[in-house]
Amino acid sequence: MTLLYGVDPRTGERLEPGVEETSAETVAALTEAAANAARPLAALPLPERAALLEAVADALDAASDELVALADAETALGSTRLTGEVGRTTGQLRLLAGEVRGEGFQRDTAEPGFVRALLPIGPVAVYAASNFPFAFSVAGGDTASAWAAGCPVIVKAHPGHPRTSVRTAEIVTEALVKAGAPEGTFAIVHGFEAGLALIKDPNIKAAGFTGSVRGGRALFDAAVSRPDPIPFYGELGSVNPVFITEAAVAARGEEIARGYVGSFTLGSGQFCTKPGLVFLPAGHGLENVLAEAVAPIETPALLTPQIADGFRSGVERIAGETRTVAESAGAHLFAVTAEEFAARPELAEECFGPSSIIIEYSSEDELHAAAAAVPGSLTATVHAEPGDADLARELVTELSRHVGRVVYNGWPTGVAVNHAMQHGGPWPATTSPLHTSVGTAAIRRFQVPVTFQGLPEEVLPPTVR
Amino acid sequence: MTLLYGVDPRTGERLEPGVEETSAETVAALTEAAANAARPLAALPLPERAALLEAVADALDAASDELVALADAETALGSTRLTGEVGRTTGQLRLLAGEVRGEGFQRDTAEPGFVRALLPIGPVAVYAASNFPFAFSVAGGDTASAWAAGCPVIVKAHPGHPRTSVRTAEIVTEALVKAGAPEGTFAIVHGFEAGLALIKDPNIKAAGFTGSVRGGRALFDAAVSRPDPIPFYGELGSVNPVFITEAAVAARGEEIARGYVGSFTLGSGQFCTKPGLVFLPAGHGLENVLAEAVAPIETPALLTPQIADGFRSGVERIAGETRTVAESAGAHLFAVTAEEFAARPELAEECFGPSSIIIEYSSEDELHAAAAAVPGSLTATVHAEPGDADLARELVTELSRHVGRVVYNGWPTGVAVNHAMQHGGPWPATTSPLHTSVGTAAIRRFQVPVTFQGLPEEVLPPTVR
Repeated sequence: MTLLYGVDPRTGERLEPGVEETSAETVAALTEAAANAARPLAALPLPERAALLEAVADALDAASDELVALADAETALGSTRLTGEVGRTTGQLRLLAGEVRGEGFQRDTAEPGFVRALLPIGPVAVYAASNFPFAFSVAGGDTASAWAAGCPVIVKAHPGHPRTSVRTAEIVTEALVKAGAPEGTFAIVHGFEAGLALIKDPNIKAAGFTGSVRGGRALFDAAVSRPDPIPFYGELGSVNPVFITEAAVAARGEEIARGYVGSFTLGSGQFCTKPGLVFLPAGHGLENVLAEAVAPIETPALLTPQIADGFRSGVERIAGETRTVAESAGAHLFAVTAEEFAARPELAEECFGPSSIIIEYSSEDELHAAAAAVPGSLTATVHAEPGDADLARELVTELSRHVGRVVYNGWPTGVAVNHAMQHGGPWPATTSPLHTSVGTAAIRRFQVPVTFQGLPEEVLPPTVR
Repeated sequence: MTLLYGVDPRTGERLEPGVEETSAETVAALTEAAANAARPLAALPLPERAALLEAVADALDAASDELVALADAETALGSTRLTGEVGRTTGQLRLLAGEVRGEGFQRDTAEPGFVRALLPIGPVAVYAASNFPFAFSVAGGDTASAWAAGCPVIVKAHPGHPRTSVRTAEIVTEALVKAGAPEGTFAIVHGFEAGLALIKDPNIKAAGFTGSVRGGRALFDAAVSRPDPIPFYGELGSVNPVFITEAAVAARGEEIARGYVGSFTLGSGQFCTKPGLVFLPAGHGLENVLAEAVAPIETPALLTPQIADGFRSGVERIAGETRTVAESAGAHLFAVTAEEFAARPELAEECFGPSSIIIEYSSEDELHAAAAAVPGSLTATVHAEPGDADLARELVTELSRHVGRVVYNGWPTGVAVNHAMQHGGPWPATTSPLHTSVGTAAIRRFQVPVTFQGLPEEVLPPTVR
């Protein structure tokens, strides 16, 4: 029996007690239970399905203080941020429950003689992320959207916050049982091998994942290599480039510089939407403001020893190829010319943590060329002024070919949970550019269309009527 | 230089002249041209995009007689069916053009400060099918829906009808040029190696395919093994089970038997929606009607020598494991008990051509067990009466977990092109259970959502306003 331990990021010390890794036999038993839950869960009247999500939300809200304390010990994200994140997570569950309650939720479209419905795909595996121990973890967006679609969920816990995961799972399970959910509607597993067994299990019909390119690619490869390939929705790496025009620097350079530092150091730079590459006009003159903003930032307690190691080696690599513009114990800001950047494609790789690279362009041509070369990203941002709307529109149009979300005169960190959100993008931002992992459209990932042809109302499944 | 030749299915003779295989260099040049076309094509005002599809439809209609003659020589499908198929193909192009012209076609949803748009994914590879030389070939549903989404298309022609493909491509190209389409909006390639090069080409961003499980799986594997995996929408094999209740046999057994033979022999059984497995109550007493309906069916001229060979060996294999119920030069009908069927999973594999297997069930339990064991299929059908609506609803509900379309008191062959169609289903019916290759929803396969956050109207790309 192998135990997994969280680590206190502030001290590096191991957190007791450990959490047991899930055996292959247990994984198989849990997926079997999930498969048995699929039919009764799909058959629940939609208001009852919605009530399950609301019951989980209520239970998590009631346990917020306890959960935040556990998560802070394991992630060092701080109780303010974590309390907010519990609220974001329960708000998300309630928003999706509202969708399920909505008129015609499972009816996509109809024509005389035809009804096209959106039905649950079946048991879903969810791979939790390290950097949002609630919103992208046990009862986060992937789980909530799979439940909303009517699918049982098995979560592979993130090893960065095992005790938070176990406790969240207990609260979720109790809430679901009380609310009358079919047995098997939810389960959790721990350990790398359990995660791999899960994606290969024939009872699992789709998967959601948030994490690294390497981990996501390995699971994606396993999902598509099955005798029966399944959809794998992975949200992987992203550099989230920001394009700032000369006019924007002239009009509000200082504000932009401070916003930039705030955005790339938010949550110690451990956001998948961190602006990793920022294009500024050569001679922008913002070095002093940037240095001033960076100076007070303290040593971050990064989420896990692996992330801390990865960040150290990433910063070392980048420092060897760039100029250092500003540096403090907790933030690193580098710069290169657009020409240098174009010659060093490795600089466009994500470095997870509080660092960012400024690329100084000397002409609009360089700016356009940079926009055309953006690798698949979750977001791209343009800062411009009304006077250069033509330039902004050209940039926006080009960037929309490379990213899932284009932000104007703002910052990419902070992802709204709403009906119009797209948190996705072309590879390597995700494994599936057609879908979002945030917002109500995330439900669609776990729904399959079925057309009923020539069926009288009384023969239609009741949830489709 | 290797030449590909069509074969006259009626005589087995090679049809001159041959069509040249496309070289790797040419494939690379064509995908480069498609990549260059992607931006201007995406930027076309939507009514102009719609006009391209309509121009192609008009040109194909004008050339219908010529195309039908070419296709009949290569496929032996007959001029009546082929003339209808040209009309189906051009009707499909016009229906999708209508979608593109529709209000807010590229705007998915909006909230204050957010617009979620559906933008073209980029150049699309389309792999044509053998059995619909127009509707699932050069200018068929995959091509039409990719164009509607705003994507350049490169078609890999099916080797079963090379001359029809070449001529269709000439007509399409001429119509697109005249209508002002960007250069690179369309191209065609020939040959197995060219098809493989296409799916691996970095300029190709998605693919549509209709064909065999083996061919589709090989291309799917190539698509998902790329350094940058791409969506691969493959429509593969399907057995399309039909469930007939005792009450339905009692009320209209003879009509059902005749409808069944008509459906599994339509187009010489070369439809992906052919009913391959039909569950009838033991002692149904329909043997004579079935034999009578099968008797006059003449030797089919199957589409290609490969299909004819596959059919011969399939029928031989099935005959060795079943009873023969009815047989003629052109149709083969077999039977087993439900118990025998459950013990021989290989009987549930598709046999492409005019054959079908009756499975005789002895109890409702056997019927329910059979429904629960249905492999992923494009369709399932239930024949029932008002008196057994409960049984019908239970069957329909179970079958909706296994197929893309459930038909009631009808036959699965004949797929309506409309807004509510789902032509898809779980593996092995398709590689992507969330999508349809027929109907207006097929466009969505080639659209990626992009959220514009905080953009003033004048900075939005014009096609999104």
